[in-house]
Amino acid sequence: MQGLRGADVEITLIDRRNFHLFQPLTYQVATGALSPGEIAYPLRALFKARSDVRILQANVDGIDPDNRTVELAAIDDIKPAPVNYDTLVVAAGSAYSYFGHEEWREIAAEVKSLESALAVRSRVLAAFERAELSDDPTIGAAELTFVVVGAGPTGVEMAGQIAELARDTLRHDFRTIDTAQARILLVEATDQVLASFPLSLSRSAVRALERLGVTVLLDHTVTGINHTEVTLRAADGTEARVASRTVIWAAGVTASPLAGQLGELAGDEVDRAGRLTVEPNLTLRGHPEILALGDMVRVRGGDGQAVTYPGVAPVAIQQGRYAARVIRDRLQGHSTRPFHYHDKGNVATIGRRAAVVDLGYLRLSGTLAWLVWLVIHLWYLIGFQNRLLVVIRWQISFVTRGRGARLITTPR
Amino acid sequence: MQGLRGADVEITLIDRRNFHLFQPLTYQVATGALSPGEIAYPLRALFKARSDVRILQANVDGIDPDNRTVELAAIDDIKPAPVNYDTLVVAAGSAYSYFGHEEWREIAAEVKSLESALAVRSRVLAAFERAELSDDPTIGAAELTFVVVGAGPTGVEMAGQIAELARDTLRHDFRTIDTAQARILLVEATDQVLASFPLSLSRSAVRALERLGVTVLLDHTVTGINHTEVTLRAADGTEARVASRTVIWAAGVTASPLAGQLGELAGDEVDRAGRLTVEPNLTLRGHPEILALGDMVRVRGGDGQAVTYPGVAPVAIQQGRYAARVIRDRLQGHSTRPFHYHDKGNVATIGRRAAVVDLGYLRLSGTLAWLVWLVIHLWYLIGFQNRLLVVIRWQISFVTRGRGARLITTPR
Repeated sequence: MQGLRGADVEITLIDRRNFHLFQPLTYQVATGALSPGEIAYPLRALFKARSDVRILQANVDGIDPDNRTVELAAIDDIKPAPVNYDTLVVAAGSAYSYFGHEEWREIAAEVKSLESALAVRSRVLAAFERAELSDDPTIGAAELTFVVVGAGPTGVEMAGQIAELARDTLRHDFRTIDTAQARILLVEATDQVLASFPLSLSRSAVRALERLGVTVLLDHTVTGINHTEVTLRAADGTEARVASRTVIWAAGVTASPLAGQLGELAGDEVDRAGRLTVEPNLTLRGHPEILALGDMVRVRGGDGQAVTYPGVAPVAIQQGRYAARVIRDRLQGHSTRPFHYHDKGNVATIGRRAAVVDLGYLRLSGTLAWLVWLVIHLWYLIGFQNRLLVVIRWQISFVTRGRGARLITTPR
Repeated sequence: MQGLRGADVEITLIDRRNFHLFQPLTYQVATGALSPGEIAYPLRALFKARSDVRILQANVDGIDPDNRTVELAAIDDIKPAPVNYDTLVVAAGSAYSYFGHEEWREIAAEVKSLESALAVRSRVLAAFERAELSDDPTIGAAELTFVVVGAGPTGVEMAGQIAELARDTLRHDFRTIDTAQARILLVEATDQVLASFPLSLSRSAVRALERLGVTVLLDHTVTGINHTEVTLRAADGTEARVASRTVIWAAGVTASPLAGQLGELAGDEVDRAGRLTVEPNLTLRGHPEILALGDMVRVRGGDGQAVTYPGVAPVAIQQGRYAARVIRDRLQGHSTRPFHYHDKGNVATIGRRAAVVDLGYLRLSGTLAWLVWLVIHLWYLIGFQNRLLVVIRWQISFVTRGRGARLITTPR
């Protein structure tokens, strides 16, 4: 959108939501460190001054490539007119996959949308409240056991934040329970946390997690989840049951169903994660007027092999800019060189003054890495007001070890 | 609670919620000016340093005055132990009453709890989104018609805020609809808005509302509400139907059911609004160990007549302090003079630089009144962090006429 500023085009932005969510900080909403309004920005405010941009808040029902229209879902008795396009850019993202266990979805909470983050916040905080209310030490211990599944960036951040919540923020808040006794298990199927990082940084992340009191279980898979316990299988096949009432899901993702629809159009199969493969210039094979990007696609390389980029914000941002360039180049009759991802590095945070940064030529962990993480995330956060509010919240949290937004707002 | 600091007592605070809500600013959450975390403060953070205070987040199932215990509702398989008391203070508040039309409750949204304010925010914002999506001008006009029922402080604030939202904040946000064409009707059954104010201030409030573009309908009652229209009856008995899809309810309130239970205990009937009558020292007749306060009670005066205080924060605050004094006096064997409400004045806001202030000896309206309103509300807002964040949000909103928190977060 930003890349098309001033181009001779009319843009219609269709989104289910009326706001842009800064996903890398969603986990801070889930643990009460930040408020929703601080990491989300109204789309209409963002494009207020752009008279070339029309915004429609709607769900997409389907794409009709023959008529070049997008069908929007009806809302009550309102049936929106189909939206015509000359060029269609699809960036519909992905959702968590429960590996075929759909029944886990309602038990194991995820941190993806703003609503899901708020639901996690309520569930994590309510577990402490229930433990304080309970007379039964067995129930109390289960309430104070948190299982985080998947040790990618989100899983690591959530485990670290819950540990800080229990050991720092809530430490003097309760009279009956000792929140420092909370157990936080981070379960990872592979032999490494933060698999996209070099092993040395991954190991310092494990040490930082353990310092915070997180139990890291590598080479463990989840084989069962119900409302009161989680079943784990170790690499040697032995199973263990953990009494826990709060499970956070941060394992695999699956692409938006629109990837499947576009895949059929191109006569291509989607991969196991539901991702569509697009041409080197992000267009759909046989449909150069359709571009797709973000973590719903893989990109065909020069050798014809599909390249899977990590499902992180920098990839999506660069692909969005690239799509704008393709459109501009076409208007001028030029062709565009294939998409090339410029990997600027990788950063993940574990907790207070604990993060890992991999810039290729430079690897950092600890306080310095954490400061790098802070600066990068503030830089990319949209909106001056949000930046200011987040800086203030972070400063106060750093000094007081408090979390001002720890509200239980979802009705039980 | 604050009034019992240092007293030789042990306090158990039972609340359904884990936070204190600053109710006078809830309407700003409902219109996207503030974020929930800015007007709510975690109870446990508030009493962190008070080792004499134990907090239980639970619903009260009932009061057993013979055993002097409070029964708490079970949560899943957790059955909390009953809580013993020597002195019981009940401040359970009130809820909106739909005058016997319970079917209106799910249609006409209210601004009372934090969740209800968030639901109203989503509904008001979604109405503009749906109007933008709709091809049908009749549906579009109905989506842009907002009916606010009841012209007390909340009704006046909501009508004023929706008008500012439509005319200022969202003015350049849409491409198809003209948000300035939105109709905001404020319906009041009596012949005056802000009935607790002198007529001159009430009239300037009407003028301020009309300047913002609100249509004020005095002497009109609501006789029907459904999903697409509201039926209004004028004083002369004529009925009119208004096509509207967003109705905000800010009319009568009814006291918590606990008032009824306590009333039975005292052998007293509750009044039409469900309020219990307490003795001049806020105790329950025949049960000096039980005190009740806030907008769930009326207070017996020296002449035996029940006095109804306005359902505003200052009354509840003064009664809370008084209850603490009663408990302290008893510990020292003193009796306490009857509760006396010290009316410091009345303040209500309509919009940007528009408010009314009645201090008895001084009546203000316009910008000066608005500044008084600002200072008072910041003063009473709990928590340094929240005050700072609210000041920043307000400053930015004042300059930009924006509302940073206009997110639609409740799932449709």
